[in-house]
Amino acid sequence: MSQSPSSHSGPDYFRATVASMQGYVPGEQPAADARVIKLNTNENPYPPSPRVRAAILEELGDTGERLRLYSDPAALRLRRAAAAHFGFALPQVLHGNGSDEVLALLFRAFVEPGERVMYPFPTYTLYETLAHATGALIDSVDFDASFRLPEALFGSTAKLVLIANPNAPSGNAHPISELARLAKSLRGGILVVDEAYAEFAPDNALELARTLPNVIVTRTFSKSHSLAGMRLGLLFGSEALVAGIQKVKDSYNLDRLAIVAGAVALEDHAWMRRNVEQVRATRIRLAERLTALGLSVLPSETNFLLVRFPGKQEAKGAYEFLKQRGILVRYFATRLLEDAIRISVGTDPEIDALLVELGHYLAA
Amino acid sequence: MSQSPSSHSGPDYFRATVASMQGYVPGEQPAADARVIKLNTNENPYPPSPRVRAAILEELGDTGERLRLYSDPAALRLRRAAAAHFGFALPQVLHGNGSDEVLALLFRAFVEPGERVMYPFPTYTLYETLAHATGALIDSVDFDASFRLPEALFGSTAKLVLIANPNAPSGNAHPISELARLAKSLRGGILVVDEAYAEFAPDNALELARTLPNVIVTRTFSKSHSLAGMRLGLLFGSEALVAGIQKVKDSYNLDRLAIVAGAVALEDHAWMRRNVEQVRATRIRLAERLTALGLSVLPSETNFLLVRFPGKQEAKGAYEFLKQRGILVRYFATRLLEDAIRISVGTDPEIDALLVELGHYLAA
Repeated sequence: MSQSPSSHSGPDYFRATVASMQGYVPGEQPAADARVIKLNTNENPYPPSPRVRAAILEELGDTGERLRLYSDPAALRLRRAAAAHFGFALPQVLHGNGSDEVLALLFRAFVEPGERVMYPFPTYTLYETLAHATGALIDSVDFDASFRLPEALFGSTAKLVLIANPNAPSGNAHPISELARLAKSLRGGILVVDEAYAEFAPDNALELARTLPNVIVTRTFSKSHSLAGMRLGLLFGSEALVAGIQKVKDSYNLDRLAIVAGAVALEDHAWMRRNVEQVRATRIRLAERLTALGLSVLPSETNFLLVRFPGKQEAKGAYEFLKQRGILVRYFATRLLEDAIRISVGTDPEIDALLVELGHYLAA
Repeated sequence: MSQSPSSHSGPDYFRATVASMQGYVPGEQPAADARVIKLNTNENPYPPSPRVRAAILEELGDTGERLRLYSDPAALRLRRAAAAHFGFALPQVLHGNGSDEVLALLFRAFVEPGERVMYPFPTYTLYETLAHATGALIDSVDFDASFRLPEALFGSTAKLVLIANPNAPSGNAHPISELARLAKSLRGGILVVDEAYAEFAPDNALELARTLPNVIVTRTFSKSHSLAGMRLGLLFGSEALVAGIQKVKDSYNLDRLAIVAGAVALEDHAWMRRNVEQVRATRIRLAERLTALGLSVLPSETNFLLVRFPGKQEAKGAYEFLKQRGILVRYFATRLLEDAIRISVGTDPEIDALLVELGHYLAA
């Protein structure tokens, strides 16, 4: 879609920061019926709890008649399930249309144009998109090869410091004690711990959101709960923070079906844990096999692996080779990642197919 | 939820405009099983097309397995249906999580903090909420008793001029020629025509969105399409405007079920028109009966009526009397509306029950 000055007068109306920004570029989404092995957007290879479909059918009833009524702006059924499950009081929990909306709400609530946000690089690229949409200034600090929390983050004066934990696309998790130290070091800002992949990791920062006044934890149902297609996210923080954030939320941000889907997905904890454990087992096997192929695999506490090749040509070549053979992985044409591909952990047969093709590629 | 300075340090983190604002207050939402007659949020009293439930079941399949995959960020199935139905090119159509999200996107794309937006009063109160969330300055100009477009809007220099057409809560529609004159009179800003109720009216402004570079039309599925609970909205404008607005949209703003629900709801045009015609017939009868009761009813091209009482006490009293008897209508405790209640047009039996109780109230 054209943004050139010669197009019909539209762009002149935009805020300068919007006119100059690029939108977020999601991973490729092939048509639903395409015969591809999709290992590029960290979806869960296993279906959601059967209770999700059952709850949606119940909400639909015989005619879908209830859909004519607005959904609950407070999403009480979902938030009560989340509060009980994660050990928070109801006013400490907020619901979003995916964690993407939750993250966007944080920018809208806390960051004026011209104010600073900070995060390490590379991480989830949406933070940059949201900063640009806000007109915020970005303090970005590079991870070193270990992907440990850069010391330069500590003592930041930014309004928001955003840490994906575990981090994407590296996959590693930071010690919670380090996140606590970071939160306490901030000078007037909030630490946002984006826990999209937390269920795959041994630990999480929810206790920090319970006890520290400047920590917010975000969650998504897209990874561990196999509900990327239902757009569900959560936010945990102090009652005062949640009360303010909800003021900038669209009132009816979740539809009726998403609210019940999210609630029952949380309630069927055992189903999610089984899927997560299966993914972890496959991830460990995949990492071993990739290492045996001579590739460098970063330690991961997520449902994906970042795999380094000898150089940029080899990594990009692997992405293209696999794509030609119907296997989608993620290649980031950006600094510090040009020699790597990110592989989402699929089912065992999907991973076996990937390993076969990757073996062909490396032998060529 | 407390915003007092004595609460735990939270509020200090907020943008000043967020700390000082009130959130949008939606109409009361009684529990789904409550035995109330709900005539307070302009929902459609009739169910959505049966194709909606069928399409959702098809997307769910036997296991809900497809929900593990992200939804289409471009919502092609929905946008193609909308483009074909309303006569636009695909790049002139954008999808939202209700028209509330669509309206929020417009503020994010076009309005910097400190810039001006303009709209008449009283109208949809969300415009004020969004302006406050943005930190925008508000030029508000009162309607006179006729609710015709105030002349003071013409020649505005505001970044956005927002007109609900038909207007809520008055119910009247402005001539499209007047909206065209308004758009052409603006000095650097965009005319947003919020057509939430357009299917109940004889005319709409889509042709202006097709032909004028500074007109955007928004639509919702919440009223005419009986899908308030699915959160679906649309936006129509020039390709250049849509291209910029989509940059500030959450990528996956609609879930998989909402996308298919919206597409088939548009395709079953006959179902929607039948419901709309029934609502219009009931509205005409309701207006006649209310007038016969001695009340003043504003002419309406929507699915609701604004009904004026002799004074504030009588209007508020009617709201409370009806609520005690299990009938919810909307009372706005705001300037210019204190002597009125807004009644959504329900089924004929619901309206008959309302008329009986209102008769009791007026006879008391």
